[in-house]
Amino acid sequence: MTETFDLLSVSTRAPEDLSKTDIKQKTVELIEEIDELQNKLYAESKWSMLIILQGMDASGKDGAVKDVFSAVNPLGIRVKSFKAPTQKELAHDFLWRIHQHTPAKGKIQIFNRSHYEDVLITRVRGMIDDETAHKRFGLINAFEQLLQERGTQILKFYLHISEAEQLERFQDRLNNPRKHWKYNPSDLRAASNWPHYRKYYQEVFENCGPDIPWIIVPSDQNWYKRYVIASKIVETLKGLESEYPELER
Amino acid sequence: MTETFDLLSVSTRAPEDLSKTDIKQKTVELIEEIDELQNKLYAESKWSMLIILQGMDASGKDGAVKDVFSAVNPLGIRVKSFKAPTQKELAHDFLWRIHQHTPAKGKIQIFNRSHYEDVLITRVRGMIDDETAHKRFGLINAFEQLLQERGTQILKFYLHISEAEQLERFQDRLNNPRKHWKYNPSDLRAASNWPHYRKYYQEVFENCGPDIPWIIVPSDQNWYKRYVIASKIVETLKGLESEYPELER
Repeated sequence: MTETFDLLSVSTRAPEDLSKTDIKQKTVELIEEIDELQNKLYAESKWSMLIILQGMDASGKDGAVKDVFSAVNPLGIRVKSFKAPTQKELAHDFLWRIHQHTPAKGKIQIFNRSHYEDVLITRVRGMIDDETAHKRFGLINAFEQLLQERGTQILKFYLHISEAEQLERFQDRLNNPRKHWKYNPSDLRAASNWPHYRKYYQEVFENCGPDIPWIIVPSDQNWYKRYVIASKIVETLKGLESEYPELER
Repeated sequence: MTETFDLLSVSTRAPEDLSKTDIKQKTVELIEEIDELQNKLYAESKWSMLIILQGMDASGKDGAVKDVFSAVNPLGIRVKSFKAPTQKELAHDFLWRIHQHTPAKGKIQIFNRSHYEDVLITRVRGMIDDETAHKRFGLINAFEQLLQERGTQILKFYLHISEAEQLERFQDRLNNPRKHWKYNPSDLRAASNWPHYRKYYQEVFENCGPDIPWIIVPSDQNWYKRYVIASKIVETLKGLESEYPELER
């Protein structure tokens, strides 16, 4: 990714000429395919997959997990949401708590937020300086390489929404009693930090690739977000060419 | 460390002119000092220490733990002995089980064997090829750098004994009923692999430094081994200049 990369120039919406009906139908098929491919991955137990979901508040990370993996056997898949680190976690290096949740062979692990928060929110809040952030980029790359060497396929999705869409979703949380629990007064404060987040996300994309590139997912429309994520997962799982092991006699 | 480094050229014994009585007295004082320094480390909770013990069978790793840390408050110190990995551990990258036991701030952690077995016994037994070993050297260096960045002081001790001394200790295990439990018929097989182990240890010393150098401890005589290890620990802990925190009012 070149230095001139600008997140603002990437659309947050599906291409105009796509048919929503077609895409929705294709997504249903992709989700069924993930179930079948995950069964093979589990049976073969040779590879594993780590799916990292990052994005601004209300970008739809929870929804992505719910929608895309609805059909998958829970035996082979786990979700870990990373919140603010505990005292115990803070007494160790920033990858300590992350490493414990990396997938074993045959498993799919989803990270809802991840070690990338340690070079994002920490920078927005001024908790670490630029030098520390750049050291961490190197440490993150080495860590992901370690996982890759062991056969872990890593997919990093950035759910890309517009500021307007985010505000609308915050409003929706306020208006919809079923979503009140998701509303947090700090949402609006985070929103005001948008330019900072954008800058630091761009630095992540530039420094933590290109071996394991970030996938920018236009996420203003959930139907398109689901489709992009599901397509990429199917493509990657297919590339592994997992097969059911033969009966040993 | 240059490529011409040859472990065989390093003495396994104390310098001739040392007085055993003097050294033993000094070691008693050093061990008391470790206790005091560890208390400060724990109280301050800013730094941590990781002590890695490697060496051939019967090189005295267990004994080193027992002798050097006898006076230390067990609250601030932990020992982890790494055995052959379990099925569950093998389903993850080789540093996964190691990372879980790295020390929190204020703590001293001792590794009796370590991630270095993954580039030693695995090579002697032909479980990994040279390319994999060299990749692992890089991953190990990055991992240790991660710990260092978080304030972990890493001390890597190689307990260096001669083949003759090792054979004598094996014999002792056979002759002494209190040591029978330590004897393992595979001891002698491991001994026959000595040239391989020496070669692979040398590669470790050359590739996994010099930022965190290996300390070669002449270990044929326990009194000298204890002294060298205790000195190095005291020196390192003193360098941290830990102080008891002041009372907050």
